[in-house]
Amino acid sequence: MITGSELVRGDRTDRNGPFLAREALRLGLEPARIEIVGDREDELEDALQHGLAADLCIVSGGLGPTHDDRTVALVARAAGVPLETDEHLLAEIGDVSRRFAARSGRPYADFEAGVRKQATIPRGALNLGLAGTAPGLVLETSQAVVVVLPGPPAELQRLWPRAIETAPLRRLLADVTPPERRFLRFFGASESVVAKALEAAGGDGDGVEATICARDFEIHLDLLVEPGAGARADQLMRTMLDPLEPYLFAEREASVAELVLDLCRVRGFTLATAESCTGGMVAERVTAVPGSSDVFVGSIVAYADHVKSAELGVARDVLSQHGAVSAETAAAMASGARSRLGADVAVAVTGIAGPGGATQEKPVGLVHLHGETPDGGSGLEFQFPGDRDSIRRRATVTALHLVRRLLTQSRDSPG
Amino acid sequence: MITGSELVRGDRTDRNGPFLAREALRLGLEPARIEIVGDREDELEDALQHGLAADLCIVSGGLGPTHDDRTVALVARAAGVPLETDEHLLAEIGDVSRRFAARSGRPYADFEAGVRKQATIPRGALNLGLAGTAPGLVLETSQAVVVVLPGPPAELQRLWPRAIETAPLRRLLADVTPPERRFLRFFGASESVVAKALEAAGGDGDGVEATICARDFEIHLDLLVEPGAGARADQLMRTMLDPLEPYLFAEREASVAELVLDLCRVRGFTLATAESCTGGMVAERVTAVPGSSDVFVGSIVAYADHVKSAELGVARDVLSQHGAVSAETAAAMASGARSRLGADVAVAVTGIAGPGGATQEKPVGLVHLHGETPDGGSGLEFQFPGDRDSIRRRATVTALHLVRRLLTQSRDSPG
Repeated sequence: MITGSELVRGDRTDRNGPFLAREALRLGLEPARIEIVGDREDELEDALQHGLAADLCIVSGGLGPTHDDRTVALVARAAGVPLETDEHLLAEIGDVSRRFAARSGRPYADFEAGVRKQATIPRGALNLGLAGTAPGLVLETSQAVVVVLPGPPAELQRLWPRAIETAPLRRLLADVTPPERRFLRFFGASESVVAKALEAAGGDGDGVEATICARDFEIHLDLLVEPGAGARADQLMRTMLDPLEPYLFAEREASVAELVLDLCRVRGFTLATAESCTGGMVAERVTAVPGSSDVFVGSIVAYADHVKSAELGVARDVLSQHGAVSAETAAAMASGARSRLGADVAVAVTGIAGPGGATQEKPVGLVHLHGETPDGGSGLEFQFPGDRDSIRRRATVTALHLVRRLLTQSRDSPG
Repeated sequence: MITGSELVRGDRTDRNGPFLAREALRLGLEPARIEIVGDREDELEDALQHGLAADLCIVSGGLGPTHDDRTVALVARAAGVPLETDEHLLAEIGDVSRRFAARSGRPYADFEAGVRKQATIPRGALNLGLAGTAPGLVLETSQAVVVVLPGPPAELQRLWPRAIETAPLRRLLADVTPPERRFLRFFGASESVVAKALEAAGGDGDGVEATICARDFEIHLDLLVEPGAGARADQLMRTMLDPLEPYLFAEREASVAELVLDLCRVRGFTLATAESCTGGMVAERVTAVPGSSDVFVGSIVAYADHVKSAELGVARDVLSQHGAVSAETAAAMASGARSRLGADVAVAVTGIAGPGGATQEKPVGLVHLHGETPDGGSGLEFQFPGDRDSIRRRATVTALHLVRRLLTQSRDSPG
């Protein structure tokens, strides 16, 4: 159950529900429902009543110091236990707030009420530690185990592992067997092609449950394999992969950026990018991977043509004859990035993300990619659908898959 | 109410809930709850019962031809009306399916059952037209108006405007007046400081409803102002902004990247970035704004030190004496970006995003920023909390706000 009026109003998209649902599945629990509730008391109470009927009810958000942060008080009421101020918590939160008051040059008195509120928790609740000045909590009721977590996703994801380690959750999880999970990652095949192949192979069922979803222009097929259904899953995968082999790029949960970095690492290659319409998004994706610095040297984001010439050495007449969005410019950008940045492997992206900048011959969505390695290079031209954001993201993912394909004709091996 | 097991399992993030919530608000309705339900019948029925108690219940998904697409049948049952096969729909869906069968070279017989299922709707339901082979529906019950829409966001957004035009929704909407929305954007003040100022100014209520949320390290305060409460809202804003003035950077829905671009445009300045730990994220945010190309020239993502020297002209002894993560390096990167890329304004980011790369003196989260304009420059040092992703995003937003502050001491004016 996710709280926050900014969520129920659609001002922000919830990330906690999906994270917790995946965690529940991983642990062998079946997520029944994700409820996103504002800060209206009646709605919160109604949702809590419903949640307490489940085995596990995870509540996120509404732990702040202000009056409209009602979660803890309502959990206590719904569970039928009194609220008590925890002296230990009071001291701990007090320390944090005193330090913050000192840093921000404000009197501690401003915080005192909030500190007491946040140190007041349902009787019997276990303290998971503080997120800011709010404690995460685990409370066991007659029916359910209730986990109360902070709203900010990073904080929620930091405290969640501690919740799993508490006795009430360990007892709950002792009764379930986590299913085996298998991952198949495809690029270049549509969701319906993958779905058809699954169907033709016999479909799921008999202890194997499949979810297919298109994510970030890849098709992700996840299999949940119940104990004993391993052979059935093997057979299903063999049969369905036969027609899909060319599109399969991984059998594990790995981003294409991670795969590209791994492939470079194995060969001892360094990597660079040269970007126009993606504006640094390819480099951003690569550097999002921890430890990327041993492979990735940098990027030249050449948005203006004079930067393409000066920093990437794209010849002026290439730009004037073929234009900034052309196979020739993409190739020159890639080789320029390799030589200027001293990288073994480079990928270049130039295109028209729109809404402006289109011409008769070069419509919005036209994107040229070029990848170059010590073994050679390859260019691709695309006409992508969608809006500016979608075109940029699709160009980014496609550029990374181009490098992946250049670095290996065989797909990523399991593990 | 959103249906789909891929959503409740967290395989995919729901986009329909937020869209419909924003639409409801825009029209003057108060979204009470977004429920995300799988395809378990009991959960669906329970959620529908709850939804039918509201004035408006919008259901998305579960309209497909297969047995586990239960939405329409369950809506009929919950509303207490019988299902009837609509001959007109039957013909319409039949045509679509025949064409598809022909294209895909499959016998129409494969589709016949699905066609009949999708042409069978609650008695009295209005047909909004087909999404694929499934009709969107509007059904008026004793209490609620129920709108049934397809799951794919593009299809849902295509049929929704038709739903608004139906008599039942027009009647419903005739009784409400859309509230005025006001936006206050703060940077540098914590959520609780903003909440306190709001409280101290009298808090919301009396026709003014406030939502405060921290988004992307900014604090966004939105006011919903009921008709007639304008003066109350003016007074509330005047009073609360007095202490918050230094942190207020916009009174409209605008990203800091848009504001920076606008500020550059006014002065006729061009913009560049030099990035290490953010790996291109600042450039990516700037170029996400349509039309940024008239201001933004490019970026040098200098991840490796040799790129900092070669491409940004950071002196080797600056790197050896002060290190890559230092005020001196940040300053050199900024001026290097200005001169190399021929930009008037540049901002540089260098830091330790972790998890690796930290030292005794330079822990994970240490970030140096430097902004430079024709009027001068300014550097900032931070010790950011959180994980790699959070540190990189925070550094990116803070870098953009640094440029914004350099370009104007006064805040962005309304409108």
